[in-house]
Amino acid sequence: MRAEPGRSVTSKVLALLDAFSPATPALTLSEMARRTGLPLPTVHRRAAELLAWGALERGDDGRYRIGLRLWEVGSLAPRGLGLRELALPVMEDLYEVTHENVQLAVRQDLELVFIERIAGRHAVPVLTRVGGRFALHATGVGLVLLAHAPAEVQEQVLAAPLERYTDMTITDPRRLRSCLAEVRRIGYAVSDRQVTMDALSVAAPIRVPEGVVAAISLVVAQDRADPVALAPLVQAAGRVVSRALNNSV
Amino acid sequence: MRAEPGRSVTSKVLALLDAFSPATPALTLSEMARRTGLPLPTVHRRAAELLAWGALERGDDGRYRIGLRLWEVGSLAPRGLGLRELALPVMEDLYEVTHENVQLAVRQDLELVFIERIAGRHAVPVLTRVGGRFALHATGVGLVLLAHAPAEVQEQVLAAPLERYTDMTITDPRRLRSCLAEVRRIGYAVSDRQVTMDALSVAAPIRVPEGVVAAISLVVAQDRADPVALAPLVQAAGRVVSRALNNSV
Repeated sequence: MRAEPGRSVTSKVLALLDAFSPATPALTLSEMARRTGLPLPTVHRRAAELLAWGALERGDDGRYRIGLRLWEVGSLAPRGLGLRELALPVMEDLYEVTHENVQLAVRQDLELVFIERIAGRHAVPVLTRVGGRFALHATGVGLVLLAHAPAEVQEQVLAAPLERYTDMTITDPRRLRSCLAEVRRIGYAVSDRQVTMDALSVAAPIRVPEGVVAAISLVVAQDRADPVALAPLVQAAGRVVSRALNNSV
Repeated sequence: MRAEPGRSVTSKVLALLDAFSPATPALTLSEMARRTGLPLPTVHRRAAELLAWGALERGDDGRYRIGLRLWEVGSLAPRGLGLRELALPVMEDLYEVTHENVQLAVRQDLELVFIERIAGRHAVPVLTRVGGRFALHATGVGLVLLAHAPAEVQEQVLAAPLERYTDMTITDPRRLRSCLAEVRRIGYAVSDRQVTMDALSVAAPIRVPEGVVAAISLVVAQDRADPVALAPLVQAAGRVVSRALNNSV
């Protein structure tokens, strides 16, 4: 009994979850219908099932939000909370000695996802949100993840338009390609005012035998930054997390 | 086209997610079939859809795990990461002045879920895992959440057998009822060796106008604990998080 033969029930349920985003964390049923292109009765029925299970919650304002049960299941993702639990003590050490912003990210398709962040209160403001996404070609963690991504991922990123965040962002594919080669050669990445004009980040890879699975970085105020001094700290942190990860599997 | 009229496709998809737990984070298709009671071809078809979307990921070992995409969507849950982002700076302050374990929890049905934890490296070992569940009647955070839960929740907990973790766990419903009244009266909860014989926790509520939505606690070694000295610290932290929460909505 399928009203729309092209779209399975599973895909409709997942489309409802996709309708929620950092910019739209609370939706009414009609907003969900509009955002998914699904008929309102379908949205109504599926949302009721998701609500009963706890994937959605309904507030006093009548709007639906992502439910705690989904957060619980999501916390089982090895690349999410699993990685974060292993990395957090190391990130705290890095914070303790620098009092700068510390970030942890993984690649998902052609973007990065921030897994954890320790924000220095007196450090340079950063825009990142845990669970948020960002392009691969601008940040320190992004450059590390892209430099070690499979060739077809690199080619897709290099073939697409490279968004310019500041005048320092690398938007020329040839320059980006040689920057990535340099990241692989020296073992860390520096993003100097390539995201915002006041910040510089230094990032290093986190590896398992199969390759680079995550990146860790320090983000500091550009005017007091010494990337060459920061690099060994960040690289050491990357190695400690790598070792913890390899011992855990 | 429903093979099993009693079970909707949505419920089958959610049952597959339910099959994963902290104890079973990686499953084969046959293990998923066994745990859900669904036929293997159904599991095969649904798992392929979940894999394509990113709700599941498949490792080199052929096992399925919860995927990063589900972690991303879960990170939008206001009672999960939203609450955690607001509470973390306060938890860090509490850690900074005490160097003890700091915990944050919310109630989900008849249990609590740990949302965040800062583990003191030299503090008493604690068993909690972010995303993990625990009974309401034993820990400090649990007692706070139970003391402020709706009456029907309290009655359900009091009517069920109360698990004994140590000789100090309150397992008599009448004693628990008066303990909860005391928690409401004094504004904080003390769990003294009620979970493990070496630990004591002091917990305070986090409130919005509609009621108590979370609890924050310090967990310290029982032999050096002074709950009366810790209570004002934890209560102040609870109030700061409450204010941040009320300002955010």
